[in-house]
Amino acid sequence: MPKHSTFQLYNPNHEHDLPLPLYRRLANHYLSAIKAGTLVVGDRMPSVRKLMQLHTVSLSTALQMCRQLETEGWLEARPRSGYFVRQPRRINLVPATEPPVNAPIDPAQFVGIHERVSAIIAQGQRPVNINFARANGEPDMYPQEELKNLAIRLLRQRPQLLTKAISPGGNKELKAALAKRALGIGMSIKPDDVVVTMGCIEALNLALRAVAQAGDIIAVESPTFYGLLQVLESLGMKALEIPTSPQTGISIEALELAMRTYDNIKAVVVVPHLQNPLGSIMPDSHKQRLVALCETQQIPLIEDDSYSALVNADATPVSAKHWDKTGNVIYCASLHKILAPGLRVGWMVAGRWHARISMLKYAQTRYNEEWSQIVLAEFINSSAYDRHLRRLRHSLTQQRERTAEAIAAYFPAGTRLTIPDGGVSLWIEMPHQLSSQAVFEAALEQGILVSPGLLYSNSNRFDHFLRLNCGKHFTPELDNALRQLGHIITAMAQQRQQRHIAA
Amino acid sequence: MPKHSTFQLYNPNHEHDLPLPLYRRLANHYLSAIKAGTLVVGDRMPSVRKLMQLHTVSLSTALQMCRQLETEGWLEARPRSGYFVRQPRRINLVPATEPPVNAPIDPAQFVGIHERVSAIIAQGQRPVNINFARANGEPDMYPQEELKNLAIRLLRQRPQLLTKAISPGGNKELKAALAKRALGIGMSIKPDDVVVTMGCIEALNLALRAVAQAGDIIAVESPTFYGLLQVLESLGMKALEIPTSPQTGISIEALELAMRTYDNIKAVVVVPHLQNPLGSIMPDSHKQRLVALCETQQIPLIEDDSYSALVNADATPVSAKHWDKTGNVIYCASLHKILAPGLRVGWMVAGRWHARISMLKYAQTRYNEEWSQIVLAEFINSSAYDRHLRRLRHSLTQQRERTAEAIAAYFPAGTRLTIPDGGVSLWIEMPHQLSSQAVFEAALEQGILVSPGLLYSNSNRFDHFLRLNCGKHFTPELDNALRQLGHIITAMAQQRQQRHIAA
Repeated sequence: MPKHSTFQLYNPNHEHDLPLPLYRRLANHYLSAIKAGTLVVGDRMPSVRKLMQLHTVSLSTALQMCRQLETEGWLEARPRSGYFVRQPRRINLVPATEPPVNAPIDPAQFVGIHERVSAIIAQGQRPVNINFARANGEPDMYPQEELKNLAIRLLRQRPQLLTKAISPGGNKELKAALAKRALGIGMSIKPDDVVVTMGCIEALNLALRAVAQAGDIIAVESPTFYGLLQVLESLGMKALEIPTSPQTGISIEALELAMRTYDNIKAVVVVPHLQNPLGSIMPDSHKQRLVALCETQQIPLIEDDSYSALVNADATPVSAKHWDKTGNVIYCASLHKILAPGLRVGWMVAGRWHARISMLKYAQTRYNEEWSQIVLAEFINSSAYDRHLRRLRHSLTQQRERTAEAIAAYFPAGTRLTIPDGGVSLWIEMPHQLSSQAVFEAALEQGILVSPGLLYSNSNRFDHFLRLNCGKHFTPELDNALRQLGHIITAMAQQRQQRHIAA
Repeated sequence: MPKHSTFQLYNPNHEHDLPLPLYRRLANHYLSAIKAGTLVVGDRMPSVRKLMQLHTVSLSTALQMCRQLETEGWLEARPRSGYFVRQPRRINLVPATEPPVNAPIDPAQFVGIHERVSAIIAQGQRPVNINFARANGEPDMYPQEELKNLAIRLLRQRPQLLTKAISPGGNKELKAALAKRALGIGMSIKPDDVVVTMGCIEALNLALRAVAQAGDIIAVESPTFYGLLQVLESLGMKALEIPTSPQTGISIEALELAMRTYDNIKAVVVVPHLQNPLGSIMPDSHKQRLVALCETQQIPLIEDDSYSALVNADATPVSAKHWDKTGNVIYCASLHKILAPGLRVGWMVAGRWHARISMLKYAQTRYNEEWSQIVLAEFINSSAYDRHLRRLRHSLTQQRERTAEAIAAYFPAGTRLTIPDGGVSLWIEMPHQLSSQAVFEAALEQGILVSPGLLYSNSNRFDHFLRLNCGKHFTPELDNALRQLGHIITAMAQQRQQRHIAA
């Protein structure tokens, strides 16, 4: 058995500079052995006393390590016998169904989403015990102390920031900081190429207004974030839903087919990394083909990249914009999901629509407030930013795995789920075509808010899906809410089965 | 001569609770006597020594009082003789020309403004010594210390505000504070009737998007703020410019005529109080007629009320929305010009379009950041808010009068100007149809930025006007810039006259 000096050899996130606590490094060490087959299901772990001796760690560290692997599903405790290796339940979850790529496009595609979303949102406004409907982490997973201290220092140093008219063009420090970070995802841009916006949602609005108008057709992923469907409807544009894989994102073949079928598609909108709700990540080759296809067809490509910093990988994935040589890609992103959910700061790189988008931004909301841009710029420029992102990814991974484990334990047979490699959401396919609306309503009765799949398409194609937030700390209360949710869905599935048998 | 105990009897702003400094109260006392005719032009003021005795004030107070009235144009100092009463030069300024109400509407009305504005704004981006182009007061005229302290206290008390996802629907405290203040301008609304926006500009965007679409005609004041013309152009809507009086605002007769001529006007947008750029204030009877007319014609009325708290009056004027009984008026306002120019917080009361506007706001930029709403709510709810507004109006009045005085002194004969009863701008009519573009360019050469009249209409109707900011502290540097500007315009006027004579 190797000594503790080698604990750092295995790190599931491939982030060797992550300062993990000792119990976690020890856990990763054993996890590595399980994954490599050195330890197999049923093997007994060394006793806690033995672990203390082997690795020169305290009782509490040894215990914490065992409990951690137990909560992740890799060990089980047997009374008076110690810990034994097991398979996490989530490994048995079947991946979500891949969409048919050559199916004819659903004629329901142009039906509006607003009333549906409004009705669901209105119902969800009542106080709930557990809210699984949002797509954020908890406040304390973001650098609240550091941001607060930066803000207070800044207000002290520059008391006029709240009463001085905002200088034009977006804050130079933030634009420079974002341009520098963009190098890391393969984008070589000047600070003045950045347009700072009121969150990514304003960036998407501006991008769409720049390249299309009311009545135009916009190709989108299916399923897609209801926020995008709302934007399209509010601008009078029509969503053309393109089949999208839970693994690899939008189907390039299906998109090509759509471009051959419709000659008036005015833009394509994609979320290449941790697509919302799927969590899919487009392979580089797909992104490259997508950029080339849109360029050839002279259709602007709008890239929403709000989540890429949450991808578990050696490095943040390269943006689609990286392959754009003609300015045909409009890159949109946000600091809302990755750094400061309480601030509405997004940004975009608008390619050949830069002048038009700058004008539209000015006419729509003027420039963003300066103080928040400066606070964010200072934090992004500090080494604390990468540290924060690593910690955030690490916490989210733990929470995602435990939530998936609970789903595997509590949800009925036939439940399907592709666990994404990052992010804050899980997209769950329920068996027997159960209605997400019915689950939404039954869960709300018990004080649990979920996001029903019917919000993610103008059709009813995803009515048997749920999007669940996994950005929450995995407390016993949360575990219990997932158990309740499992009961609700299981009961519905049983009813459905009995009806089938009766029929 | 009354004793100083009566100094408080006269206050030009009718704000008896304003804690004015002693020299100012003394100045108002003599100003009252001049305006009442008790002291007439040429009368000699009591000597400084006499003033000290009469009012039991110090030498410095007596001197400060005389100098203040001198800078305001009411006294002149004669060497070794003392101070003598005079008429301020600005009294001789001729009011700006009233527009012809029944003239046929200029066919240039639908020509776009963007390129013109962009060109001017791009030229104005270079560093200048004196910027007369903005429409704000100086940062220290707003409560920077109080807002900063509130912000720091709030961040300390609620450190999660920057990292917690923004709760839906706009901050309840701010909506309650605004609804309470709205009582003072004749609006009886519930907190939930308020939609908080990214400044008034977003409110105008949302209002227009709610009631009209691309291709529709919108009636606007002429001249009007170029920001509104930009919004209309960016939304593909057409501006129909309605003649507007520098005194009483939009001509109801001209609007009625336009409504008879065009059957497809989809909205009317007005700034009833301190119209930008005119500074006009609509009499209550006009507002009432306007509301009734729009109601009868079933055309939504959009009221932009960003400046009313800057009107010098016993009470802030009653909004047009006050007379709205059917929800046909969409009220838009901002805290940007009156409280915190560094924050982008506006608000609106959307009448019967509330649900649609709430949806558009959500789809366009989501909800405003919470921390700034809470800071503003706390300040608005405190007694400091009214104190701040009184001080702001007082400072602006002084600066406006001194700027007008300088214009009367330095600008050529034939210059016309209606001095508005509040606000941060002066709208100056130059003689001989001089080109504001030419003045803009010549002034910029000397490091002075002005706002040319051609920006305030899609036609060239106001090319011989300038909008000058009077929200700046009246320093010798500012005085000098106005003198330089006067030289430029005088030289151009002389050239023009000589050409006339030669021709």
